[in-house]
This record gives sequence, C-alpha cells and structure tokens, in this order.
Amino acid sequence: MEPLDYHAEERSKASFDVEEMKIVWAGSRHAFEISDRAARLVASDPVFRKDNRTMLSRKELFKDTLRKTAHAVKRTIELNLSEEETHTLWFYVDQPAYANLHWGMFIPAIEGQGTEKQKQKWLPMAHNMQIIGCYAQTELGHGSNVQGLETTATFDPQTDEFVIHSPTLTSSKWWPGGLGKVSTHAVVYARLRTDGQDYGVHGFIVQLRSLDDHSPLPGITVGDIGMKFGSGAYNSMDNGLLRFDHVRIPRNQMLMRLSQVTREGKYVQSDVPRQLVYGTMVYVRQIIVSEASCALSRAVCIATRYSAVRRQFGSENGGPETQVINYKTQQSRLFPLLASAYAFRFVGEWMKWLYTDVSKRLQANDFSTLPEVHACAAGLKSITTSATADAIEECRKLCGGHGYLSCSGLPELFAVYIPNCTYEGDNIVMLLQVARFLMKTISRLVSGKMPIGTAAYLGRVEHLMQCHCEVQRAEDWLKHSIILEAFEARSARMSVACAESLSRFSTPEEGFGEISADLVEAAVAHCQLIIVSKFIEKLQQDIPGKGVKTQLENLCNVYALSLLHKHLGDFVSTGCITPKQGALANEQLRSLYSQVRPNAIALVDAFNHTDHYLGSVLGCYDGNVYQKLYEEAWKSPLNDTVVPDGYDEYIRPLLKQHFRTARL
Amino acid sequence: MEPLDYHAEERSKASFDVEEMKIVWAGSRHAFEISDRAARLVASDPVFRKDNRTMLSRKELFKDTLRKTAHAVKRTIELNLSEEETHTLWFYVDQPAYANLHWGMFIPAIEGQGTEKQKQKWLPMAHNMQIIGCYAQTELGHGSNVQGLETTATFDPQTDEFVIHSPTLTSSKWWPGGLGKVSTHAVVYARLRTDGQDYGVHGFIVQLRSLDDHSPLPGITVGDIGMKFGSGAYNSMDNGLLRFDHVRIPRNQMLMRLSQVTREGKYVQSDVPRQLVYGTMVYVRQIIVSEASCALSRAVCIATRYSAVRRQFGSENGGPETQVINYKTQQSRLFPLLASAYAFRFVGEWMKWLYTDVSKRLQANDFSTLPEVHACAAGLKSITTSATADAIEECRKLCGGHGYLSCSGLPELFAVYIPNCTYEGDNIVMLLQVARFLMKTISRLVSGKMPIGTAAYLGRVEHLMQCHCEVQRAEDWLKHSIILEAFEARSARMSVACAESLSRFSTPEEGFGEISADLVEAAVAHCQLIIVSKFIEKLQQDIPGKGVKTQLENLCNVYALSLLHKHLGDFVSTGCITPKQGALANEQLRSLYSQVRPNAIALVDAFNHTDHYLGSVLGCYDGNVYQKLYEEAWKSPLNDTVVPDGYDEYIRPLLKQHFRTARL
Repeated sequence: MEPLDYHAEERSKASFDVEEMKIVWAGSRHAFEISDRAARLVASDPVFRKDNRTMLSRKELFKDTLRKTAHAVKRTIELNLSEEETHTLWFYVDQPAYANLHWGMFIPAIEGQGTEKQKQKWLPMAHNMQIIGCYAQTELGHGSNVQGLETTATFDPQTDEFVIHSPTLTSSKWWPGGLGKVSTHAVVYARLRTDGQDYGVHGFIVQLRSLDDHSPLPGITVGDIGMKFGSGAYNSMDNGLLRFDHVRIPRNQMLMRLSQVTREGKYVQSDVPRQLVYGTMVYVRQIIVSEASCALSRAVCIATRYSAVRRQFGSENGGPETQVINYKTQQSRLFPLLASAYAFRFVGEWMKWLYTDVSKRLQANDFSTLPEVHACAAGLKSITTSATADAIEECRKLCGGHGYLSCSGLPELFAVYIPNCTYEGDNIVMLLQVARFLMKTISRLVSGKMPIGTAAYLGRVEHLMQCHCEVQRAEDWLKHSIILEAFEARSARMSVACAESLSRFSTPEEGFGEISADLVEAAVAHCQLIIVSKFIEKLQQDIPGKGVKTQLENLCNVYALSLLHKHLGDFVSTGCITPKQGALANEQLRSLYSQVRPNAIALVDAFNHTDHYLGSVLGCYDGNVYQKLYEEAWKSPLNDTVVPDGYDEYIRPLLKQHFRTARL
Repeated sequence: MEPLDYHAEERSKASFDVEEMKIVWAGSRHAFEISDRAARLVASDPVFRKDNRTMLSRKELFKDTLRKTAHAVKRTIELNLSEEETHTLWFYVDQPAYANLHWGMFIPAIEGQGTEKQKQKWLPMAHNMQIIGCYAQTELGHGSNVQGLETTATFDPQTDEFVIHSPTLTSSKWWPGGLGKVSTHAVVYARLRTDGQDYGVHGFIVQLRSLDDHSPLPGITVGDIGMKFGSGAYNSMDNGLLRFDHVRIPRNQMLMRLSQVTREGKYVQSDVPRQLVYGTMVYVRQIIVSEASCALSRAVCIATRYSAVRRQFGSENGGPETQVINYKTQQSRLFPLLASAYAFRFVGEWMKWLYTDVSKRLQANDFSTLPEVHACAAGLKSITTSATADAIEECRKLCGGHGYLSCSGLPELFAVYIPNCTYEGDNIVMLLQVARFLMKTISRLVSGKMPIGTAAYLGRVEHLMQCHCEVQRAEDWLKHSIILEAFEARSARMSVACAESLSRFSTPEEGFGEISADLVEAAVAHCQLIIVSKFIEKLQQDIPGKGVKTQLENLCNVYALSLLHKHLGDFVSTGCITPKQGALANEQLRSLYSQVRPNAIALVDAFNHTDHYLGSVLGCYDGNVYQKLYEEAWKSPLNDTVVPDGYDEYIRPLLKQHFRTARL
C-alpha cells in the first residue's frame, strides 16, 4: 500500500531540488549525514519517546529524564559514537537534562579556567561521568551582574583551605541546571577573600554530594527550585538552589589558571590574558544562534504544514474551503518567519567562522578584533533568540485553536525555548552592550579610527548620512545593493542620532541611562543589518542544486523587506527611504509571497525534521492531521475512565440538589 | 508587631489618593465593595487555594476543579449571594471550569434562541444545576466559519424527531468546555435538513449523559481532547470531543425562537429580527474587553512590584544596586502596559454603555447603529486581547529569570489567557471585519452618507487628509486635541489608502484578498483611535480624589504616545506628523515616565488585587519576595526526598561506571 501523503500535491509543486536544499540547511553533506543518522536513531528508539511528556507528573518526568540520559550514555558507548555524533544524538533526544550542564558548562569551565594540573585531576573523572558537575553562578538576588554575587570563599591560611559560605538569603545559588537533585560537584562562583581583601568573583570546584549514597555533604543545603513555565519543557531539569554553611575545600580547588592564591594567602595574577574568556563566549553564543534557527525551523515547519491542511471559508458551490496558507494575512505573518529561520541559519554558520578567526587571533595575542566580535556575538544572540521566542508563539497563533493543544508541540517548544532570552546574557543587557560599542565606534571616527568587520560600514558614515534610496519601481527592491544601503543608512543614522543626543547630557552615563530605550533600538537596527548582510554574502557563494539559489534569493528578500515594513518608522523618519518607497517595498513583498507559496512545504521539508523531533500532530510529515488529533485525544488521562474521579463527591450531589436540600 | 512592607517607601511617594483610584478602577463604589468582599471571601477559604495548582497531575487538577465548583455553589447558597455577588465570587475563584460554560453559554443560548415554552421547560432545571450544559459549536475541522459545520440534524417526520449525526471525522465536535467529562446536556449546532433541503446551521438541545449514572447515552461518543498549553491553566477544564451516531431527539428540542420546523417538516422563519443576536455578541465582547484589563492589570502589578524589589548593577561604593524600575529600558517597556491596563478598563466600561444603548435600539427595532457597533466590538475584542496576551509575556520577561518560575504566576496567567485571542472570534478575522466596515463607510462617503459613533471622524476625511500636526515643542504632545487629530488622521489616511488600492483590482474581493495585511493594519489604527478617544472622554468627566485625575492624564498620554512611537511608520509615512514631531513625542514620553515612576506602585495597588488572586510570589503586596521564593522552592515535588527516585537505576550505575564495565 502506498503510504498516505496529504502533502503530495504541495510537494509536487516545488520548483527546486529539496535534497540539495537539505545540504545547504545542514551546512555540508557531512553535517547532513551525521544529523540524519542521529535523528533516525533517536526517533526509532522507544526509550526516547516523548509524546506523553506533557502528561507526566514532575516526578515521573524527572525520572524519565534520568532514564533517557543513562540510555543515551549507554548507546553512545555501545555504538562507539564520535564526539560529533554523540553531541548530535544528545541534541535529538531533545529533553533538557543535567548532562547538558555537565558537558556544556562544568567541563568547559575547568578546561578554560583550570591549570594543567587541575585539568589532569578533574577532567578524566568528568569525561567518564564518575563525577557529575554543574555551573553554580547565579544567585537568588543576582543574575546578570556577576560582580554583585554575594557567596564568599575566604582563605584560611591555618588549614590551607577556602571556607565557602552563603552570608545572606539572597546569596543562595539559584537556577543552576543539574544542581537540584543530580550533581555531585559544582564549579561555584564566589567572592575571593584573602589577606584581608575582597578580590572579586572567582571559580571553585566544590563537592556537593557523597559519591557513595548521594546525600548532601555536611554544610550543604541543596534542592530543586520548583515548577517552571509549561508542562514538560524545562521541568525535566532539576534547576537547583544551594546554600553553604562554612564549607571547607582544599586551596587547590580554586580554578587557578588566571589567578592564584599562594600557600601564604597572597593573591597573584598569572600572565594569561584575561581576554581568552571572550573566545568561549563567542563559541557559546554561536551555538545559541544556531539553536535559534533550529527552534524557529520547527515552529515554522509545524505552522506551514498545518496551514496547508487547514481550510477555512471561501468554499465555492459547496466545494472544499480555502487552504489557510493561501490567505495573504497568513502568508504575511508566516513567510517572514520562514525566511528568518534561513537567515538565522546562515548567520549562525558565519559565526562559526568568526569563532575560528577570533580563536586564531587570541592565540597570536591579537586582541584587536575583540570589541567588534564581542558586540556582534552579544547582539546576534539577543535578536535571534528574541525573534525566535516571539515567532514560536506567532506560529502557535497561526495554527488557530488547535495550536493550543499540547500535541501541536508548540506550547512545549515555546516553554522550553524562552529561557534562551535570559540565560547567557539577558537580551536587553546584550543590546545595551552593542549600543555602547556603537557609540564608542562613532566617537572614535573623529580621530580617524576606522571601524572593522560588521561595523566597517560606519566608516562610510558621511555617505550614509546623506545618501538617497534609488528605488523607483517595486522590483528595484530586489537589488542587494539597494537593500544593503538602506539598512546601513538606517543603522548609521540611528546611531548618529543617539550619539548626538548623548552629547547634550552633562555626563555620558546620565545620557546613556536617559536614552537607553533609543540606544536599544539603534542596536537592533545594527544587528538586523548584520543578518541581512550575511544572508546576502551567502548568496554570493556558489550554491548548487536546481532552483535552490532562486528560493534563497526570495527568502533573503522576504527577510529584508518584511523587516523594513515592520520598522518602517526607522527608515522613513531618518529619511533613508520615502513613504512611497516604503509602499513599493510592501508591494514587492506581496509578490514575493506569491513566489514562496508553491514552495512553502518543500522549504520546510528541507529542514529534514523527523516526526519524532518535531513532536507535533499538526506538523506531521504526511499531513494526516485530523486522524492523529483524534487518536491523540483518547490518550488524555481524563479518558482513563468514562465517569471522572470526583463525580460522586462533586457532580452528582449538585445534580441531585443535595446542597440545596441540606440547607432547608 | 508591625506587618512587614518592603514597598512602604514606594507607597509613601505616591502623589495621589489610592483609595479614590480604587473606586475609579472598579467603576463605582458599589462595584468596588462587591468585588472587594468577594475577593477576600475567596482568598480566605482554604478550598480555593491555588498555589499548588501547577504541581497537580491532570486528574488531580480536574478533581480539584470539581471540588472548587461544588464548594462555590454551596457557598453562594449558604451566603444567599445576589446574582452579581455570585458572578464576582466565581470570577475570583479564578480557575476555568465547566460552570463558566453552563452559565455563560448554555443558559444564554437557550435564553436567546429558545421559545417561551422552551425557556420555561429548560431554564429552571439549568438554573438549579439539575442539568449541566455546554455549547457544542466548533468541530475538529471547523472553527471560525460556522457555516462550514458538518454535523447534521435531519428531521424524521415519521417519528417527529431530529436525527443528529456526525458524518465525517472532521465533523466531530471539538473544544467545547465542560463537554469532555461533566455536561449532561449540550446546545449542539448542526445543519438542519428537512423537506429534502439543507437550511444551514441551527441549535438543538441534546442530552449527552444519563442523569442517573453519568454514562454517555447510546450513540454518543464523548471524551476529553487532551492536554493544553501550560501547567495548571486551562487544563482544569474538560474541553471535549463529541460524536453522534444517529442520535434521536424530539422535534421540540430544536431552539425555535428564530425559525421552526413544523410537525410536517416544513421550515418556517419567525418574524423575530435576526439582528437580535448582535446584542448578545456586543455583551460577550464587552466582558472580554473588561477581562483583558483584569488580566493585564495582574501581569503589570506583578512586574511593577517586583521591578521595585529587584536590584541590578549601578552599585556605588558597595551600596545597594539600582532598583530595576529606575532603568529607562524597564520603564519604556513597563509603563505603556500599565497605561494600557487603565485604557482597556475605561474602554470596557464605555462598552457597557454601548451595549445598553444598542439593546434599547434593538428593542425599538432600530438597527441603524448595528454595523458600527458590531465593527467596534469586534475590533476592540481583537486588539485588547492580542495586546494583553503579548503584554503578559512581556511582563514575564520584565521579571528576568524568576518570571519563568511557575510561582511568579505569569506562566499560568499567560497560558490561561491566550485562548481569548481565538475564541469568540479569531482576532485576525475580527480585524478583517472591521476593515470591511471601514471600506464600506468610505465608499459611502461619496453618496453623502455620514458615518456615526466611533466612525464619525471619517465624516471629516477631507480635513484629515490634509491637516498638519501643530506640535513644535515636546509639551505640545500633551494636548488632547493634538493627540486625537494625529490618531484620526493616521487612521483615516490608512483607510483611504486601502480604499484606493482596492479600486485598482478587477473585483473588490480579489483586492480584499491581496491587500488584506494592509487592511488589518488600517483596522488596528482605527481601533487604537477608539481606545485613545475613550480614555480622553473619560478624562472629561468629573473625577474626584486628590491627584487622581493628574495620574490618569499621565497614563492617557503614555498610552497614546507609546502607541505613536511603536507605530511611527504609520504616522510619518502618511505625513500625519513629521520625523521631528515623532522625536518630540519620544522626548515627551521619557519625561512622562519620570512622572509615572514615583506613583507606579500605588497605581498597581489601585487594582486592589489580593495576593490570592494575583497568585504570584514576585507580586506579593508586602514585597518580601526572596523569602517567599525560598519557601516556595521547598514545595517542589522533587524535594519530597533527598535522593531522587531513579538514582539507583540511572545515576549510581553511571557514576560507578557500570555501563562501561558491562561492555568489556
């Protein structure tokens, strides 16, 4: 029997080679193959099923996570997977777990901040998972401002130990993943005190639990911080709290690569450049941007496929109603998100190059590109994650009522995604850092210091302040040079306007505080320009496959012009474009939507998501949505019995008027 | 001992009479008293506790809902509450339950569409809850388009019965609240077939379950549709599915006020005007707008209070860090939402008058205002609920990481609120209806037909197309007349531009489809104008209480100018204001934020929310946030045991390297 495919007709309409687009999306044939194999491996293993996740109680869900994690470890050993394959497999298991923090934060912290001796001692145990670690930085009262942490690590020269202590309620460690119930060890960030002085925040390796029976060690209070957004989602993680009551650790458990405390209690800085830490930051933020494109692609895939199945209004002569994907209102909300998924993918790919480049430079003691790279990574982290969080919710709305069902996959995807906007740098704080960089760059132009990299366009600020957009007809908006100049001019003019405002305040700090909302907008403009320009650069590469490049051209234009429409006020009020040109962009956008429409299903197929990874009845590959929704409904815990628990106590007495009679 | 109040200093800074503002918010002293009493009654009753709601399994949560509902019924009888008091008590129980649909949809459907005889038969039973009903309209494959419903009701003249049937999978009734596990009866919407013809969708009273043992009657398949967004939230409701296999009901269970089927099977329309249904629609939408202001006020109250407690950066000489509410980035995101809560409150209040007015007219067979009233109610429903949903999520972000904890109250508030954007008219569909009304209004101007009510300004379209905004200094933006004209001009110009675009297409329908995204934007502009103008009208009333009016003036200006800033592209590209005037509006906005800042806590105190109703550790009245967060954490189910369930099977074997050894 032929497998059913409700999307067959849609798929046949595509005018490009989907298999080739899959390679473009994955980044390379090699990446595609690794990813495809891992996705299938996870999808076919019953231990990794996740369709019941939102129905589990917190304890059941947590135990399920422990089971999946142990199983994943077992499978990677059995299959002898490479590091890349292992990483990809974890990715497709798609359930936040302590192991993410152990591998992604605990081990890298030791690698980056530990001495050779410390690495030799701790890393083999950590790699074998003989110890499990977490990253204990944030506190109940302290998040973004690391310098405000209150936990203390006081050196005791008598015993050659540090005394770790939580002096206040707000100094309780709060949020670290894996801390609540699993980690045996933690890298704890605390204020170093020795020699009568406070030397600020440093990292220390602290054992938390017995390796024999898992009970917390003396002086340690540790537990889970409670329920989080949504059902399923991040509730699989034991985000924890941690308090120390004068806990003693040997001196050599301070991470001493960058600074040491001697046996006598002297604080000594090593000559390792502090800037090295920025390399790691770029690395982590590049991963976050790549993951934004993944999360966004899932949401868009679900909304696009269901929009082709769902029909509403427009029936003629009793025929079928219109597929909702044919409505311009649907297209104008959905297709910019589809285009954003591709845009974020390519900018994430470019950030990999950026990371390699900055790493090489750091090794050669070349710190010249750091400010620009740092601003760029912070800004891209901020705008891609904010846009993705909003887009997931928009995709849910685009699915109508059924998007609200857990089995649509969108509620859990939203709940599990949104922490990205907060961790690894709060998104607004990040944008303010970008703005600081922009203001500094502009102030230095006067002294002839030419900006580099993603800020290079500011070197042409004089031209950008007075250039005129040349668009006369809608099609003119398809020219890359015109789009690019419009985005450059908008960003430059917004930054210059901020710089001018700042100069009117008595101190720059006062001004920075007053106009911070404007600065955030200028930073957004700068970051959007980066994404547009990297998409355009991608198109200048050789891209094989029938029709693939044409599709990407369309998506690039949709991305840029939909941003332009959304931020029309920026473009028009800075005089970068005229209102008429804004209207022409909108007209061009409509015609681009018509070109995307027949390729929409194929463009989301190119993400190569398995039904398991998507985790959505509405987004299933074959489009047999209604049958699956119906089957899914019967799995509801409330359907375990025909008459619900509570009927005898709370429904029957109502119907039988027992409350009323009782009163007489 | 003095009760602790971390907000005492904030409260002392307020420059207005909070108690008087509470009356303004409630609408009247009477409304305040009813509401205050009900809120305290619920808050003090242990049966209504809800702090553990997000930790309950679906079955526990559902049973808890049944218990609360029965208890609420019991209390209203015991306390002999009036209808108004009862309604308010239900409101403060704050947990979606079948009773909402029984009282809010089932009974009104019979009241509105039943004959006198039918009302006499069914309403007493329903009022006593001897039967419990729901409203079964939407189907698996059919939402907004009621005319597309597939369920059939075929008259059988042999037996004088209707045969209710679900001919397809997609015809399964899907979503009705209270249907899944509780309702004994439903008003079912089905295509009436008699006399060999399909007469379209009509309502029928159908019994679903036995009144003896609650089992579904023969031919009825009924159940819960599964988990929904979030934990807690709408999972307390048994949204249901329902299929009919040739279920027979007596002919007199068709709701026959508007049309009848005779004993012989003839379809007859009564002379009751169909327009009466619009009265109910206005009523329901007015309630939704009022509830939007409630939901928004809760989120804003939580975010405002926590922003005054939370400190970050800016510590000088080791002193405390800066309250985050002092940052302009925080103010520019938070205060427009605070202003929106008040704006929606007042427009909701005005809609009560609108409903009374339209009801009077309908009774007098005056249908002249209906199109305008209908567009207005649809549009206000749409933009207030969309803005509220977005605002709740924005408030969560404004609370930083801790907003992601369930005990912040914001995740559940978001999850439980968002269905408002879909039910009672999908928000995009609503805006398209507004747009149709606007296009019709404009096309009729030519023939001299003057628009009325909220569309009256379009009668001055010639002036509005060429007027110039007179703002020269930032303070000029404080003049109501200037704000109003800018919003009128923007809306009029956007509508006229759409009308001009439409005229370029070969048919209006084609054009309507093509430019629907622009039409939606024009509709939004029109609806925002309505809200701004009703806020301004409110300020023209006599408002007693020291400083109260001044605060409302500030909020009105914040509301209008923040919208202007957000939609700057509309205002500037239509030439309603110049870029310079836009910048001045922004400048004025900053100075308004400084005026709101010292009053912020008092302005949210004026909502008079109890800690129970707020349901948020971050938003608690006394501001003792960190202590409460800490206590709340220990309630996590994972903290029931020190060593988690699953340790022996899945953690210890990892640590002890059992997987590796097993493999050798």
